[in-house]
Amino acid sequence: MSSGTIYGLGLGPGNPELMSVKSDRLLRNARHVAYFRKAGKSGQARRIVDGMLPENVIEFPMEYPVTTEIPLTDPRYNEVLAAFYVDCTVRLKELSDQGEDVVVLCEGDPFFYGSFMHLYTRLKDHAPVDVVPAITGMSGAWTATGDPITWGDDVLTVLVGTLSEEELTRRMSDTDALVVMKIGRNIDKVKRALTAAGLFDRAWIVEFAQMPNQTVTKLSEAADGVTPYFSIIIVHGQGRRP
Amino acid sequence: MSSGTIYGLGLGPGNPELMSVKSDRLLRNARHVAYFRKAGKSGQARRIVDGMLPENVIEFPMEYPVTTEIPLTDPRYNEVLAAFYVDCTVRLKELSDQGEDVVVLCEGDPFFYGSFMHLYTRLKDHAPVDVVPAITGMSGAWTATGDPITWGDDVLTVLVGTLSEEELTRRMSDTDALVVMKIGRNIDKVKRALTAAGLFDRAWIVEFAQMPNQTVTKLSEAADGVTPYFSIIIVHGQGRRP
Repeated sequence: MSSGTIYGLGLGPGNPELMSVKSDRLLRNARHVAYFRKAGKSGQARRIVDGMLPENVIEFPMEYPVTTEIPLTDPRYNEVLAAFYVDCTVRLKELSDQGEDVVVLCEGDPFFYGSFMHLYTRLKDHAPVDVVPAITGMSGAWTATGDPITWGDDVLTVLVGTLSEEELTRRMSDTDALVVMKIGRNIDKVKRALTAAGLFDRAWIVEFAQMPNQTVTKLSEAADGVTPYFSIIIVHGQGRRP
Repeated sequence: MSSGTIYGLGLGPGNPELMSVKSDRLLRNARHVAYFRKAGKSGQARRIVDGMLPENVIEFPMEYPVTTEIPLTDPRYNEVLAAFYVDCTVRLKELSDQGEDVVVLCEGDPFFYGSFMHLYTRLKDHAPVDVVPAITGMSGAWTATGDPITWGDDVLTVLVGTLSEEELTRRMSDTDALVVMKIGRNIDKVKRALTAAGLFDRAWIVEFAQMPNQTVTKLSEAADGVTPYFSIIIVHGQGRRP
């Protein structure tokens, strides 16, 4: 019996119309579907594919043992997560060994800051894995602003909100176009860094890019009510153009 | 009569399987299709959709009046190109005014260093324009390497090969993950900058990412024969991971 394939399937920013033809087909024919979620939640990735999966699909929710209860800097954080990824890997490998294909749902593009990467590095030498790229969340976000992100010689810098305020400020001060991901509870720090770098008035915040509840707001006009966890900040390049 | 819509249609890296469901549908039902190409060439964007367009589609090849004949720094370069973009815009607007939808083919993602952006800014206040995001060429390239591009707090810098060697070196020396686009005849300069930044041995060059003729090579092992025009250089981040 030949091994099943484990698909790291990029869902894109969250609009089924923007999934690739390949992802769409794999989802509609899936027998096993795995996805990360916070315990007790339905999970964003699973919600995106609502109505697309076959009726008899077998679901494998992979529930994070920890999210913000342990600080990132605590060594236990890595230990607990590593053990969790090993458990998930073992289960996926078992299915593959039984000849079953498994689709692992990945928000955005699997290789761009994705959780699937932690399974991928543990699986790739032991089972057939196929990574299906997708439209990144940032691409969904800059498209939503109605303004191109990079022109001519523009430098694009992608930062995560978890960096220190000093580091954010330094890098924001030295780029043409900017994307900030993983904003979450770092929103106030990110705003201070944008202000220090002189970019605050050019920044946009896109919430739920390409989803029905999408909002696109100048950061300077965004109320404090914006849900930063699913938001991306965009500063457009202004480079050379004929 | 209502105006037709001009679609800035992202094709992704070049594999029809990786086009979005929306792009795929628009292509298969297109009445008018426009695309850029070099005079006398069939054009890469047009080649990608071979076999997908309806038989009676009306084609509008937009032929660049100049590519490398005039240096970028010559003011005539901008003048000639600006006049060309205005001509294309006029023709697209005429079709829209006649109630015709037009699909404009865009390699990669339309808002990420795309030629369509020059039409978009001239059209968007005068005709209905719908931009369909797509998988970027860089995403196709890093997926092809089989190794994730960014982990944890990694900073991603995207550079174009047209920057000066000094600027390339400075920015390459201060990033975790790196993408270099628009390599073309800048390949030797880019290689020198990577070497000066200590990244040469970690760099990969991906040619024709996600296309049948794709190659993935360590830059240090790439022969001089690689076609740099359709290539992207990737240096993977090595950030935090449990």
